[in-house]
Amino acid sequence: MKGLVTLLTLLISMGCMAESSEVLPSWQDTAARQRIIAFVTEVTDPASANHVPASERIAVFDNDGTLWAEQPIYPQLFFVADRIRALASEHPEWQTEEPFASMLKGDIASAFGSSHDAAIKLVRASQAELDTDTFDQVVRDWMQTARHPATNKPYSKMTYQPMRELLTYLESNGFKNFIVSGGGIDFMRPWTEAVYGIPPERVVGSRVAKRFELSDDSARVVHEGTLEFNDDKEGKPIGISQHIGRRPIAAFGNSDGDLQMLQWTTAGAGPRLGVIIHHTDAEREWAYDRESSVGKLSEALDQAPQRGWVVVDMKQDWQRVFPE
Amino acid sequence: MKGLVTLLTLLISMGCMAESSEVLPSWQDTAARQRIIAFVTEVTDPASANHVPASERIAVFDNDGTLWAEQPIYPQLFFVADRIRALASEHPEWQTEEPFASMLKGDIASAFGSSHDAAIKLVRASQAELDTDTFDQVVRDWMQTARHPATNKPYSKMTYQPMRELLTYLESNGFKNFIVSGGGIDFMRPWTEAVYGIPPERVVGSRVAKRFELSDDSARVVHEGTLEFNDDKEGKPIGISQHIGRRPIAAFGNSDGDLQMLQWTTAGAGPRLGVIIHHTDAEREWAYDRESSVGKLSEALDQAPQRGWVVVDMKQDWQRVFPE
Repeated sequence: MKGLVTLLTLLISMGCMAESSEVLPSWQDTAARQRIIAFVTEVTDPASANHVPASERIAVFDNDGTLWAEQPIYPQLFFVADRIRALASEHPEWQTEEPFASMLKGDIASAFGSSHDAAIKLVRASQAELDTDTFDQVVRDWMQTARHPATNKPYSKMTYQPMRELLTYLESNGFKNFIVSGGGIDFMRPWTEAVYGIPPERVVGSRVAKRFELSDDSARVVHEGTLEFNDDKEGKPIGISQHIGRRPIAAFGNSDGDLQMLQWTTAGAGPRLGVIIHHTDAEREWAYDRESSVGKLSEALDQAPQRGWVVVDMKQDWQRVFPE
Repeated sequence: MKGLVTLLTLLISMGCMAESSEVLPSWQDTAARQRIIAFVTEVTDPASANHVPASERIAVFDNDGTLWAEQPIYPQLFFVADRIRALASEHPEWQTEEPFASMLKGDIASAFGSSHDAAIKLVRASQAELDTDTFDQVVRDWMQTARHPATNKPYSKMTYQPMRELLTYLESNGFKNFIVSGGGIDFMRPWTEAVYGIPPERVVGSRVAKRFELSDDSARVVHEGTLEFNDDKEGKPIGISQHIGRRPIAAFGNSDGDLQMLQWTTAGAGPRLGVIIHHTDAEREWAYDRESSVGKLSEALDQAPQRGWVVVDMKQDWQRVFPE
């Protein structure tokens, strides 16, 4: 038995050594990486005054622009565009009715951009009156087959490798990771477990109303068209409170839509981590902030220094952006 | 090493033997217990045609009358009554204003029973304008100190021992357990992890609206008075879809408020388990069903045979009701 104990001790100490040099391998060893690791080390150390019990280690992540690319427009809008095309034969009136007509001519940006009502109409047409099982499958099929127009890669490969490593690192340190996105909750849930290891119940997003329908041979929950909850800006802390029920200790975002989530998270007592992904890399990804119509980052960037948030400079701080 | 392997094998087989005779020890070995165990055995057996992957093993539990006693009135109503008394000195107008006046005279049932509006007013007064951290603490303090009027026991001891064992049994078989209750989501979340092992994010319930408030030195989420979502009847499958994002494979309830949750759960494809706790034990707990104003069970009881739901006869099927 003594040999076995020695072997186990050796394996455990090798594991620990491996961990410190191998966590977050796609991150440059700059201040951003060091501050994230210092925070995790501190809250997980039982001897630290800032130790946080595992049950309270809640981390929230925006999705668009934080976990995957959101340029040139949010991926969900490409999904909606594909759905409108697929449904067009059942809706001959769409050939002349806006915003559908623009969409069917391939002018996705102006179809969505013409007005808030137009965008709502399009999103509604992509899912209204489908039951949850059917819509799940529609989204799953799309994720399997769709390709990003700029790179021709599947959307699962438009996720950020450094952020995927961060999710794994946090989870292996007892954190529970949640997505808190302005995107549609039912658009994300069918694939987040496969792509990010985040199960459906840990995804918070914008919601349409639903209704229950019972017939002789089925019982279904059906999507209605009305937007019931907009999980953006002030909506994010509210969505977190309603879905998760606890104030997170770490929040990750990239735009002013994440401002209130970052404020609420980092205003709590004890150790807190706020992180902003700043898109600075026009070669490997996109470079945008204050003037962008997608993922505008201005107010949150201004508040970052005084609130102690880590600003990740994608170009400087990430060794690589996308997975192989 | 050979001795070690033999020892391990022995320990593992002892573990398995122990498991089959020791699961659900507070249940009589009647058909109800056997059907529950048969279901769990089937869905967890990789060789079974009805095997369900762990990620899809979602089980939902009503709370009042399913996990803890709901007689003579829902425990949350006693909490509200205690809050009204605690706040009365700040509200001298309540001495004459209904439903507060009745409540302060100790007539809890008629204060709540006078109208739906009256009940809403009382619940609102118990939490409106409190921020989430403060309300959490108020509920925690109440759970520590309050006693059930009929038994003088803390409410955590008014939970059902057989159901607590069932939660443990399911979790040890890879299930994720969720509470789906008509009760207030913010009333349950502060204590469900300690009492049932169910963390806040796995609790679905009725919700009031909330708002985000930022000031120079704080960021808070504040409870408003308006009931935003009623997690009862048709609300239960909708709440499950919005919070959990998957159709459960097992549902446990005790009243007609759980009917639609049971219907939706058991109408899905593959193996399904629907269970109704029937309160038949006037000596150890309470006996009530079709005529009760609390936890009325009539339609769901009628549908149980044709839908294949297990009806647990509390008097016959449970060796004991409450924990020590």
